[in-house]
Amino acid sequence: MTTSRLEAFTDGVLAIIITIMVFQLKAPEETNLEALFPKAGVFVSYLISFIYVGIYWNNHHFLFQYIEKVTGKILWANLHFLFWLSLIPFTTSWVGENHLDDSPLALYGFTLLMCGISFVILQMVIVREHDKYFESKIIINLKNYQRVSLLIYSIGILLSFYAPVVAVFFYITPAILKIYSQIYHQKKLL
Amino acid sequence: MTTSRLEAFTDGVLAIIITIMVFQLKAPEETNLEALFPKAGVFVSYLISFIYVGIYWNNHHFLFQYIEKVTGKILWANLHFLFWLSLIPFTTSWVGENHLDDSPLALYGFTLLMCGISFVILQMVIVREHDKYFESKIIINLKNYQRVSLLIYSIGILLSFYAPVVAVFFYITPAILKIYSQIYHQKKLL
Amino acid sequence: MTTSRLEAFTDGVLAIIITIMVFQLKAPEETNLEALFPKAGVFVSYLISFIYVGIYWNNHHFLFQYIEKVTGKILWANLHFLFWLSLIPFTTSWVGENHLDDSPLALYGFTLLMCGISFVILQMVIVREHDKYFESKIIINLKNYQRVSLLIYSIGILLSFYAPVVAVFFYITPAILKIYSQIYHQKKLL
Amino acid sequence: MTTSRLEAFTDGVLAIIITIMVFQLKAPEETNLEALFPKAGVFVSYLISFIYVGIYWNNHHFLFQYIEKVTGKILWANLHFLFWLSLIPFTTSWVGENHLDDSPLALYGFTLLMCGISFVILQMVIVREHDKYFESKIIINLKNYQRVSLLIYSIGILLSFYAPVVAVFFYITPAILKIYSQIYHQKKLL
Repeated sequence: MTTSRLEAFTDGVLAIIITIMVFQLKAPEETNLEALFPKAGVFVSYLISFIYVGIYWNNHHFLFQYIEKVTGKILWANLHFLFWLSLIPFTTSWVGENHLDDSPLALYGFTLLMCGISFVILQMVIVREHDKYFESKIIINLKNYQRVSLLIYSIGILLSFYAPVVAVFFYITPAILKIYSQIYHQKKLL
Repeated sequence: MTTSRLEAFTDGVLAIIITIMVFQLKAPEETNLEALFPKAGVFVSYLISFIYVGIYWNNHHFLFQYIEKVTGKILWANLHFLFWLSLIPFTTSWVGENHLDDSPLALYGFTLLMCGISFVILQMVIVREHDKYFESKIIINLKNYQRVSLLIYSIGILLSFYAPVVAVFFYITPAILKIYSQIYHQKKLL
Repeated sequence: MTTSRLEAFTDGVLAIIITIMVFQLKAPEETNLEALFPKAGVFVSYLISFIYVGIYWNNHHFLFQYIEKVTGKILWANLHFLFWLSLIPFTTSWVGENHLDDSPLALYGFTLLMCGISFVILQMVIVREHDKYFESKIIINLKNYQRVSLLIYSIGILLSFYAPVVAVFFYITPAILKIYSQIYHQKKLL
Repeated sequence: MTTSRLEAFTDGVLAIIITIMVFQLKAPEETNLEALFPKAGVFVSYLISFIYVGIYWNNHHFLFQYIEKVTGKILWANLHFLFWLSLIPFTTSWVGENHLDDSPLALYGFTLLMCGISFVILQMVIVREHDKYFESKIIINLKNYQRVSLLIYSIGILLSFYAPVVAVFFYITPAILKIYSQIYHQKKLL
């Protein structure tokens, strides 16, 4: 089994998630620019979610270029990862309409956390089905970043109930670090 | 005619089905976690349907890697299979909002049954357009599993009207067995 | 420029059209089977549209397997064809909710007619950018069928205002003939 | 990293944007042809947006056929471009329902402008990551057209508040010129 269909299917699911979220941004009835202000929360949450899906697509793309064989375990670890990603539009919509309310914000962080965990599981399954050389080459320098970002999401979830503005800051930070890393380090590896 | 476009089109349709279902999970108006409880039925039915579409994508992927030629019959058997799969979001939504009511539950089982039957037809058409060697290599060890699961769906449909909880159990069992089988047996075959 | 991205983009658009139509089939509020009866019109119009999109995907697949170069003219003839196909969900929804009312039925036929005409234009553009040998091999035996089906759609549009049941019959006939032809004749050509 | 997944992902996103826009064209309740007249604004804005997404898909297709390596910077410049394109359905819907009202029309022009700017950025990033020969071959004859069209969009945005009909004319002109150019000049380059 080659990786081409797994990649194509994953690309399809991520393309749909990233595009369809914006349809929750309903056109307002009024036609003045002020009518857009209540949409700001949905817009910002869309922007953050767009960036996260972009990061995961980029990570997935990067991870699978070195993979030679696909097994049933890898297929299901990938579907598990896609399941959590597919919940992002739902939590994005809930948090976007209720800005800094605690439960939507905590659930949004929980989805980010589960996406992160399921991606780590996907990596682990792939490494176990391949060899040690593969691990050393690809995964090792991702590990530290991933551990830290899972910790940051967890703290963000707790902060949602006490200091929502800080929680948002915790959700955004790993994304900014990751984009920076992808832009400045993926150059060498290609 | 190569199989690449048939695979790409099928991947596209399955990616859309699996992703769009979650949009029936509308964000609640309230912002407390209790507001999510009424969504539990829709969420569970989404989870089960996600798993079934994942299983069929996996099966399809597995089946088509051995196929060398695509004919008009195979194209239409595949479209017939996609038609029944495309009804899953509709029945998922109906059953999810009405939990254990008999008609939605029976219709959900009927859709699962028709997906199963149309996949068996697709396999039969492919085997008939190829040779006997192909059949012995691929299909034979699927046959028993498929017969049993079609029977289980049929019993589940009947049970929907008398013991809905048991019906749900009948719908979930073939999925769990299939995931187990795909994780532990596809390893050898790749 | 190879044909691969044009095919992938077209597959994506057709996969979305064919799948998203079913989302107009909203789950009824009631939970008895009778609640599905008012959905019958939408279901039947979905089925017919699903078949037409399937036929066009099949035709497109068949046409492009012989094409060697893609030019700007071919790209825009293809986008023109996709534009008319993208209107099918709108007209399907209108006709499905109003069964045999004249205007929706005529508009549905008009969309079928424009899809047919734009596919003929796409073929003509492709032939003109290639050579005569290409035309004789591929197109010639399609031409008669296409002329007849464009005529049948046109008659169907007129009949929508006088004998809607007959109009539906005129819309379905070319599809049945085409499926039959694709199943029994594409075998030889592959 | 090859360009194939970046192309597939972009094709997926553009296919969804171009197709899903038409779902904002809700079927009217009445069944006479007059019921379609209030839909004319949405239909025209859909048509213009369909053409713009088609142009960008065509440009993207054209640009990436010469690209040999993909870096993190190119991936993010591409995601930035897709972000602005993904807002087109929202602004299309707002302007379509409010025809020539100033704010929706200006916002529509702003989205066109940002799509244009982000495509220019994508080109610049690609050129900087490749060599000078690449630039001279591909980009140079695009530059003048792009500068002029960005200027035309900007004037259109200003005109939205004073002469909306002229603004629409300014939005349509670059599209017509571009289609003409793609149909008559891409022939030589392929």
